[in-house]
Amino acid sequence: MYAREQGLRGNALLIASESVGALYAGVTLKSLNDAGYSVHYAVIPDGEEHKSLETVDRLYDACVDARLDRGSFIVALGGGVVGDVSGFVAATYMRGIPFVQIPTTLLAQVDASVGGKTAINRPAAKNLVGAFHQPRLVLADVATLVSLPRREFISGLSEVVKHGLIADKDLFEYCEANAPALLGLEREPLEHVIFRSVEIKAAVVEQDEREGGLRAVLNYGHTVGHAIEQAAKYGAYTHGEAVAIGMAVEGRMSVARDMLSEGDWQRMVDLFARLGLPTRCPGLDFADLVDAMMKDKKTDGGRLRFALLEGLGGVAIVSDATLDEVERAYRAVA
Amino acid sequence: MYAREQGLRGNALLIASESVGALYAGVTLKSLNDAGYSVHYAVIPDGEEHKSLETVDRLYDACVDARLDRGSFIVALGGGVVGDVSGFVAATYMRGIPFVQIPTTLLAQVDASVGGKTAINRPAAKNLVGAFHQPRLVLADVATLVSLPRREFISGLSEVVKHGLIADKDLFEYCEANAPALLGLEREPLEHVIFRSVEIKAAVVEQDEREGGLRAVLNYGHTVGHAIEQAAKYGAYTHGEAVAIGMAVEGRMSVARDMLSEGDWQRMVDLFARLGLPTRCPGLDFADLVDAMMKDKKTDGGRLRFALLEGLGGVAIVSDATLDEVERAYRAVA
Repeated sequence: MYAREQGLRGNALLIASESVGALYAGVTLKSLNDAGYSVHYAVIPDGEEHKSLETVDRLYDACVDARLDRGSFIVALGGGVVGDVSGFVAATYMRGIPFVQIPTTLLAQVDASVGGKTAINRPAAKNLVGAFHQPRLVLADVATLVSLPRREFISGLSEVVKHGLIADKDLFEYCEANAPALLGLEREPLEHVIFRSVEIKAAVVEQDEREGGLRAVLNYGHTVGHAIEQAAKYGAYTHGEAVAIGMAVEGRMSVARDMLSEGDWQRMVDLFARLGLPTRCPGLDFADLVDAMMKDKKTDGGRLRFALLEGLGGVAIVSDATLDEVERAYRAVA
Repeated sequence: MYAREQGLRGNALLIASESVGALYAGVTLKSLNDAGYSVHYAVIPDGEEHKSLETVDRLYDACVDARLDRGSFIVALGGGVVGDVSGFVAATYMRGIPFVQIPTTLLAQVDASVGGKTAINRPAAKNLVGAFHQPRLVLADVATLVSLPRREFISGLSEVVKHGLIADKDLFEYCEANAPALLGLEREPLEHVIFRSVEIKAAVVEQDEREGGLRAVLNYGHTVGHAIEQAAKYGAYTHGEAVAIGMAVEGRMSVARDMLSEGDWQRMVDLFARLGLPTRCPGLDFADLVDAMMKDKKTDGGRLRFALLEGLGGVAIVSDATLDEVERAYRAVA
């Protein structure tokens, strides 16, 4: 049992979303019990709207019921919502107790479970509240992806491609060459792109855990992407879909600044299309998008910051982008 | 303006309790405005019961209304409740923004504002949820103590005496010699004991910010004290009063272990009595106390930990205390 090797002991609280818990809570509880842990189990409803302070409130009570103390730990079983909210509870219960992630979505495996960011949403903005809290252990098994809804799986590919775009042209081209195999859930190419994604993200985070500077390169597509999720109300687009549209828009900004060729931008959106990811969000009012962007925590003293592509596989942070520039890119894509 | 020297910029949110805000918010807002800051102001009701997730919820909204971003900062004006809850908001809003403390109670000046602990209460236990977040700046002015209710002021002396008991016999004896002057709010002795208290606490915290070990010496009187506050319901005793009773009980444990002489224990409770601090809590059921202690975050894998006196001015952590031992000490004091 990996948890023993990590020196984890005492009581544990397993937290899962309803749908993932129905599939995998039994086997996880058994494995923890077999390893000698006394485990309580808490379920949270499916859906991004439950990444809320109300859920945190309920989970604090579950921690008390499970008699967790500073020698105990929390296990999050599920996608990004469960990982983010459970991680926030682990970060703040008794000012921080150990935390294990078992991500069961592609998005959580390649992105959310790596880097120690925990978060909850607020009515005003997604992930507006949170804490940095590194998991003691992350267990990712591609076998869990067969039970993932198709749209969620494809959404995870968006972050995989992002990692290629900002840091590794080989990974991007691997995705181009293996798009059908990835969509067919073939084990080997999946493990390859997950492994490379985690490597890329971990390397960035190691150098900048608290998002002082370098970590911002991971935000390519996210300044616009988060605003789209917010302006369209949670649930209209998945995170990965909104980020794909965000990458299309921010990619246009890169083209306008002569940082990316027209042809490379086209390659990027072609790959998104082949993977079933959107690159436009018809009907969304640009003014609503601006409002959401200005409330986002990536603004810095009121200024917007963007991670823009420098060719395929490169990235640069710009802090001087104007709203006009964003609007031109947005309209060019729409 | 000190905030400028600390490199603070952008918008600010001033948070005060109702009673302290009525006295000092005006002058604080003016001083921040004069220094060029755009400041929003949020008031929270007086009382420990408002150190809650509901207050945090409201304050997150206030942060959004104030358009705080990562370049902004929060100023907490008031006692420990305001400092703890505002600090928790600053620690978690956008995963942490800068934070300034202006403590206006003696307890906050000598204890809560030093060390970076932020917290909120839960129905199950005091300070059960929180985060470590160091203030960028702490401004303590003894002039604010004239407006402090008498009982709150005396409560703060409890932590001053504790700092003497665990680390500095001279400070303890200074309090013995100057009890009337301290109770008379004389500026010079007050500034002396505040300064020494902050020095002692800061020295401990510097060596152990995350409470791995050494910081636990500051908990003398607190294992029992917190349980008393909890079992008697918040508000029956002030924090300092509960800690004074806790020190009397845990001092008896020290005597029973031959770590403290009977005479030194008597000197301690005599000083508490002269300062107007209680050393007993008649009518409190020991079983309720045990229940509260077991839920406290200072338990470690289910075991109780105590900081016990080793003579006046010394302290040691013990992890092998039994409930019988605590009960004997509790009954000896009662």
